[in-house]
Amino acid sequence: MTKDIKLCLVYRDMWQSSGKYMPRVDQLVRVAEPIVEMGCFARVETNGGGFEQINLLFGENPNVAVRKWTQPFNDAGIQTQMLERGLNALRMSPVPADVRRLMFKVKKLQGTDIARSFDGLNNPQNLALSFRYAKEGGMIAQGALSITHSPVHTVEYYIQLADQYIALGAEEICIKDMAGIGRPVSIGKMIKGIKERHPEVLVQYHGHSTPGFSVASSLEAARNGADIIDVGMEPLSWGTGHADLLTIHAMLKDAGFSLPDINTKAYMQARSLSQEFIDDFLGYYINPQNRFLNSLLIGPGLPGGMMGSLMADLEKNLSSLNRWLEKRNRPPMKQEDLLLKLFEEVEYAWPRLGYPPLVTPFSQYVKNVSLMNAIQLIKGKDRWSMIDENTWNMILGKSGRLPGELGDEILALAKAQDREFYTGNPQDLYPDALDSFAEKMQEKGWDRGQDDEELLEYALHPSQYEAYKSGEAKQRFRKDLEERKAAKSAPEQAPPASAATPAPAAPRQMTIDVDGVKYRVKVAYDEQGAETTADDNSTAATTPPPAESPANHREITAPLEGKFFLTKDSGEKAVKVGDQVREGDTIAYIESMKVINAVTADKSGKVVEVVAQHGTDIEEDDVIFRIS
Amino acid sequence: MTKDIKLCLVYRDMWQSSGKYMPRVDQLVRVAEPIVEMGCFARVETNGGGFEQINLLFGENPNVAVRKWTQPFNDAGIQTQMLERGLNALRMSPVPADVRRLMFKVKKLQGTDIARSFDGLNNPQNLALSFRYAKEGGMIAQGALSITHSPVHTVEYYIQLADQYIALGAEEICIKDMAGIGRPVSIGKMIKGIKERHPEVLVQYHGHSTPGFSVASSLEAARNGADIIDVGMEPLSWGTGHADLLTIHAMLKDAGFSLPDINTKAYMQARSLSQEFIDDFLGYYINPQNRFLNSLLIGPGLPGGMMGSLMADLEKNLSSLNRWLEKRNRPPMKQEDLLLKLFEEVEYAWPRLGYPPLVTPFSQYVKNVSLMNAIQLIKGKDRWSMIDENTWNMILGKSGRLPGELGDEILALAKAQDREFYTGNPQDLYPDALDSFAEKMQEKGWDRGQDDEELLEYALHPSQYEAYKSGEAKQRFRKDLEERKAAKSAPEQAPPASAATPAPAAPRQMTIDVDGVKYRVKVAYDEQGAETTADDNSTAATTPPPAESPANHREITAPLEGKFFLTKDSGEKAVKVGDQVREGDTIAYIESMKVINAVTADKSGKVVEVVAQHGTDIEEDDVIFRIS
Repeated sequence: MTKDIKLCLVYRDMWQSSGKYMPRVDQLVRVAEPIVEMGCFARVETNGGGFEQINLLFGENPNVAVRKWTQPFNDAGIQTQMLERGLNALRMSPVPADVRRLMFKVKKLQGTDIARSFDGLNNPQNLALSFRYAKEGGMIAQGALSITHSPVHTVEYYIQLADQYIALGAEEICIKDMAGIGRPVSIGKMIKGIKERHPEVLVQYHGHSTPGFSVASSLEAARNGADIIDVGMEPLSWGTGHADLLTIHAMLKDAGFSLPDINTKAYMQARSLSQEFIDDFLGYYINPQNRFLNSLLIGPGLPGGMMGSLMADLEKNLSSLNRWLEKRNRPPMKQEDLLLKLFEEVEYAWPRLGYPPLVTPFSQYVKNVSLMNAIQLIKGKDRWSMIDENTWNMILGKSGRLPGELGDEILALAKAQDREFYTGNPQDLYPDALDSFAEKMQEKGWDRGQDDEELLEYALHPSQYEAYKSGEAKQRFRKDLEERKAAKSAPEQAPPASAATPAPAAPRQMTIDVDGVKYRVKVAYDEQGAETTADDNSTAATTPPPAESPANHREITAPLEGKFFLTKDSGEKAVKVGDQVREGDTIAYIESMKVINAVTADKSGKVVEVVAQHGTDIEEDDVIFRIS
Repeated sequence: MTKDIKLCLVYRDMWQSSGKYMPRVDQLVRVAEPIVEMGCFARVETNGGGFEQINLLFGENPNVAVRKWTQPFNDAGIQTQMLERGLNALRMSPVPADVRRLMFKVKKLQGTDIARSFDGLNNPQNLALSFRYAKEGGMIAQGALSITHSPVHTVEYYIQLADQYIALGAEEICIKDMAGIGRPVSIGKMIKGIKERHPEVLVQYHGHSTPGFSVASSLEAARNGADIIDVGMEPLSWGTGHADLLTIHAMLKDAGFSLPDINTKAYMQARSLSQEFIDDFLGYYINPQNRFLNSLLIGPGLPGGMMGSLMADLEKNLSSLNRWLEKRNRPPMKQEDLLLKLFEEVEYAWPRLGYPPLVTPFSQYVKNVSLMNAIQLIKGKDRWSMIDENTWNMILGKSGRLPGELGDEILALAKAQDREFYTGNPQDLYPDALDSFAEKMQEKGWDRGQDDEELLEYALHPSQYEAYKSGEAKQRFRKDLEERKAAKSAPEQAPPASAATPAPAAPRQMTIDVDGVKYRVKVAYDEQGAETTADDNSTAATTPPPAESPANHREITAPLEGKFFLTKDSGEKAVKVGDQVREGDTIAYIESMKVINAVTADKSGKVVEVVAQHGTDIEEDDVIFRIS
């Protein structure tokens, strides 16, 4: 057993699984050199995913970034790869076919060799064009199987899925274990099965560490015929990131595989450069929770990376639920009890929702519906009374076919609500758009760029591209970074420990005895120094008097708690006083648990007051509109 | 492949690999119930290691703690196990044979079923008595192979070592991968080899997560015949702790093993109780760094758990080295360069030191000598010019035989320094001591306790037992905890980020404008509230004038930087002014990098001044004594 095996450094993903952003292009060019010199990588993941978009958010040109960052690897003969989302290409919402086609052409010309394409539902239909366009553009088309763990997501299912991807044109297969919940032995069996049927097809294993399987899965993958293993490297390996290069390298050597040595000096340089970037600014966008492994969600099958937001959701809902219970003289629930109820409800709801893979965004949909169900049941209400529009779209087939059968109660609900199932190709819902973007560019006098790359960016991320062009993006990013830096260096509240005597971490109100005289003082700390106003003499800031509440009007209340929005995006018109709304009209949105829920009018009428404020947090049952 | 496999919860070790302490006995008794109810454990590690000693440090009776904590498992038919250190029994220094013998008898009577015995050098001689006494006392004797990764620590070596342990009476074998550096496939091969030769001997795999191999190693262990896998559980799994129960359980199920289900409700209870203990007081003793995985030390072979202290040592030595370089107009070194030199030096020094397993304390010895060597070489001095006494004792065979051959240069050095090798049984250096402790107890009127358990404690930890009996231990612990709580709840300095504008985290001096009049104010925050003194009127605390330095005396300077001690423990007499010291006499100690280095007089003479203060940090070349 002395088989060659190759390693791929997922330098892009390791940043994006830890935080929001990536290093700037000047930093990437610096780190490229030691990564090449390390001598142990056959491939490096350079772009795709959020990379291009992040550059726009920085106010930088993503096309310059991709070209400069892939160049050193191209020169060194190391293959570069990108991640793309099939129907969603390089964004989170569906993309017209002509834009998808242009993307592969541009990315190849910019220096990217391999296109890894995945679909969150594992829908071959959504990837067919990716494979075709990738090859047309001169890229290697890699089809990625999104791994989840359910009774329908069996080893056999994935082997057959690989067959379909290969039949549709995929030249390579990636086992994309994006939540790290694939079980090691099953991962090995999948790869064995794929390799037996397609010995000529390269298989690349991509895992995440979160629940702790990834090192064992990498070993099983290698032993069963995987050709390339994806790795991260410190200071960003482990946690919600990837198994570490040094660990995988040492393990595979010991297992009898032949792979190139690591140049330790270059390794140390690459490692400390990444740390330098964190210290520079990226650390402000890294969630410390993402550095930890987490196993709790293995049972219900949810991705461990969801743990942080899940616990936050739980806490919020728990306190609201406990207020509800208190009002009814019922005993409060403990967090662990609600968590248990949630897990039990996932077990009930997931199969009935057709077993969507528990990866973003579908894992969020399943979790949200389950949590809502659990809470409604505790309150003695019905299951499924809160299904947000995105989840409905998934149920109705607008993202593609679900892997499992929908439950009868879901089918009945769809019928009762007159919801229509969609059986066509999701791509057909999004007509070609390049011409219209090209026209807009001409109107604005904007250049379409080398190989039409600017046109591509504009078509993929219209509003972000405009904000980049106007300079607004750069300004916004700089402001945000300054605020984060200021917040970090400002006095922090000490972490509470139940038994600790809480001390005032940043006292802003105190009684101070100066020269024997006592004063009640309020202190504000800002960057310039301490500003002070004496409490008793200070005039209260004038707050607007509460809006008068028109009596005798019908109230529309919030169906759940969250952040209230009158519109989803700037293009949409907000409901305002005087508007006529009809029953069933979407009149506002509530963002709760990462999902935007439409609020519909339960009765027709004329808006006499918009009570809730756009962008503010509201509670369940708060009055949000009054209508006549 | 549907083999039964069992799980052992290492509840003791998971606390002690994260921090210093364990829950109190009242807490342990509470958590025992849900652990039993979880229904998935064949064994639980309850005591041993530092458990008994920790109770003394709390000021609690360890014998009561062991009896109460093992009872629920005894009642439920779950085996309990302890860890003991062979020659060192339950402490860090050698223990007389009669005390070791009593220990096994007492521990069995207190409710502990299995004694896991290990030796840091894997010396069968040091474990022979453990196996004999364990069985005499009615315990199951488990021999643990301390895993390290070196050219002499081969699969074959460990298989033969198991043979020797079994021949000496071990009834079970533990693969004790205490630094988690065992390579998964080799771990599997070891177990396969042991099981082939001794199919009737139970094999238990014990790993730590630090460099990330442990999940893969657990799978390889199970597949190759291990009967029991040790696991930790959240919130204390991973990091320097153990692979998590849920991960291992799900992986083994998928791999076709048969093992009992986990009662999720009980799991949630046990999990939140552990969290409650952390919030109560144990969190104050947990190093957050221990929650992370770390792969950097895989190359040199050092345990990843050493990373934190290693980086601290490195930083300290680097700044001292850079001052030295600066004085000589040489460019400063970067941390990563010194780290590389250290790694290269470990590669050079470790084989020449006879390949002691890189586990505590031997890993520290190897790291320290290597760091000293690396620094001395940079300074143009000789290798091996700084070897502390503990390392010498290891080299000379006082801990038992080393696995490899010593290098010629070490042998020459020993000869030049007239150091004698010890080839006898290390146990013989420590004569029986129970009688003398029994006498002391009688003198003090102290009870020997049920089954002589109080005598055992006194003989194992004399000074700590005395501090427990006097109440001083409890007082000291309470004071320490209060200080930690106060420190934690006091305003903390925000973590520095190089680009961040440093803001005053806890402003204690400020200009406050009260009623239009400006005051310079100092604020102290304490538990009662804010105390204030006007700055200008405060009197400076009187500091003692510097001691006068006698001229014309010879100086003894510190050979290295660290914490200075006049004595190692309270029993020893400190060198004082007027004492006559002879060349070679040990006159003080410097604790550096977890190792206590003896300082010897380089010349004979009379002490005219003790310059350095006991317990203070000193730098290399600081004057510590003046002699006439």
